[in-house]
Amino acid sequence: MNAAITARAHTNIALVKYWGKADTDLIIPQTGSLSLTLDQFYTDTTVVFDSSLAADEVSVNGDRLTAQQATKVHNFLDLVRQQASRTSFARVRSVNHVPTAAGLASSASAFAALAGAASRAAGLTLDRTALSRLARRGSGSATRSIFGGFVEWHAGHDDLSSYGVPLQEDVDWPIAVIALVLDPKRKKVSSRQGMQNSVSTSPFYPAWKQIVADDLAAIKPAILARDFTTVGETLESNAMRMHALTLSAWPPYSYFNGDTLAAMQTVKSLRDSGVACYYTLDAGPNLKIFCQAADVTPIQERLAQQFGQANVIVAHPGPGIQFLD
Amino acid sequence: MNAAITARAHTNIALVKYWGKADTDLIIPQTGSLSLTLDQFYTDTTVVFDSSLAADEVSVNGDRLTAQQATKVHNFLDLVRQQASRTSFARVRSVNHVPTAAGLASSASAFAALAGAASRAAGLTLDRTALSRLARRGSGSATRSIFGGFVEWHAGHDDLSSYGVPLQEDVDWPIAVIALVLDPKRKKVSSRQGMQNSVSTSPFYPAWKQIVADDLAAIKPAILARDFTTVGETLESNAMRMHALTLSAWPPYSYFNGDTLAAMQTVKSLRDSGVACYYTLDAGPNLKIFCQAADVTPIQERLAQQFGQANVIVAHPGPGIQFLD
Repeated sequence: MNAAITARAHTNIALVKYWGKADTDLIIPQTGSLSLTLDQFYTDTTVVFDSSLAADEVSVNGDRLTAQQATKVHNFLDLVRQQASRTSFARVRSVNHVPTAAGLASSASAFAALAGAASRAAGLTLDRTALSRLARRGSGSATRSIFGGFVEWHAGHDDLSSYGVPLQEDVDWPIAVIALVLDPKRKKVSSRQGMQNSVSTSPFYPAWKQIVADDLAAIKPAILARDFTTVGETLESNAMRMHALTLSAWPPYSYFNGDTLAAMQTVKSLRDSGVACYYTLDAGPNLKIFCQAADVTPIQERLAQQFGQANVIVAHPGPGIQFLD
Repeated sequence: MNAAITARAHTNIALVKYWGKADTDLIIPQTGSLSLTLDQFYTDTTVVFDSSLAADEVSVNGDRLTAQQATKVHNFLDLVRQQASRTSFARVRSVNHVPTAAGLASSASAFAALAGAASRAAGLTLDRTALSRLARRGSGSATRSIFGGFVEWHAGHDDLSSYGVPLQEDVDWPIAVIALVLDPKRKKVSSRQGMQNSVSTSPFYPAWKQIVADDLAAIKPAILARDFTTVGETLESNAMRMHALTLSAWPPYSYFNGDTLAAMQTVKSLRDSGVACYYTLDAGPNLKIFCQAADVTPIQERLAQQFGQANVIVAHPGPGIQFLD
């Protein structure tokens, strides 16, 4: 008798970025990173192992994936089967609760939820550190989505030593992250390709490792001390230095579009007018704006006026992985 | 009896960028650089020293500058007076032959022409190396505009050792540079401020010095061998790495606008379709596209279609400083 297990995991936004793998197979990063899990965007995934199946069956948002589309999920389930010494295939139903066309990466929440549901459905009882290590094998940023609030990913040097650790899981600091959707399309250069290109061709990459070490050393005490300015300046600086790696790669490329540049100017002009806020962005054109809860309304209104209300989504710190009955 | 002297100097486009001063007073750069002087954009400047004047009188394009607007010219004339042991003030008439609103920097051609006209009007007979050193004191890039064709600026370490040297003055390689004007307005962050900000705040700056050394070592033999691909890849890579320095500074900034990003994509798509061309850009949003003469027409047509014919200007290698009667 195999139980169907459902897990929910939230996506996260990196404040100090993960950009480059040291081991592309095990997904061991070149550096540590630090994120905030967000309440608005999550994935619910149900897994059941069923010996009557002739292959893994995977559906996302109600659509059945082809075997080729499901390759990453299938490979991930193989890892779980290996750990649990099982052989049967699984039925996986995954629903992404990310606002339609939000242009936000769902692989972090997807692989965190899959790690939780698949491991438990296979009969494994993994603690959260082990779940984080398992989620890492599906997608680097999923390593952090096992935990809520502010989460550090310790780079480590092998499968055992590379996992997420909560810095502050219950965030009672009144902060918010405003997601600004500027292009919902899938990115032209995936983050996987993009970071590998930076590692192998940017002459600035060696300095990036020191930047991350310095930014982690600055942001962690600042988060605990609720030093908004230091957290904001560190995350904006870190994001722009990550994007400088893409410009300096060969061939050079950029995740920015014209609206990205305009939105950065808007954030700066809000700041100049006394509304404290800082932006970050990942491997795509969409900005995420870090602010204090008291400033959400003016920022939201300004962005809605410029980019349309439907493209402005307010999020807050979110929880770690949950198992649903 | 003081003669009025008129000199003409052309602007240049850096293929390996000058970005950062080691000495801000003497304008000694952190690294060498290499440029191509262009035939389409030049400045004619007439200087006469006149003991009846109570102050320097400066006009640009027919407009008289205020004393404050003329500060840089006045300071430059002081250097010339010092070298020539003269005391009288000068009348300076300068006309920039840069297409209206071309958004192209004229300080290189302006200070090169001023160095030529002012020194000769003051009775000095300077060879071109000495003229290059003098022009450098007005604007770094003017150091190179004394010479025609491909010019290297040897960084040096003091006033005597920092000057331009022609790599190939008479260019019979059929190449062209297409200037694409995307925003004719003056830049928000001057190159002077921008480069100093990069030097003092970008953790990538130390690596930039090695990039320039490597790019100079690659591009010089490639120019002499007419290896278009190596020249093109080197200049595009070098430009993007310079702009990566602006993103990685604190506060971060960018000279790009939405059209800059779109035009970069157009160049890439032209290249993908078999039309060899590469872009570079300086402290502003306007692209300069390096291509072979045979490809000018398709590139010009594609850009005119997207950005308007008036914003596309075709230039070719230009000459060094000339004295006009």
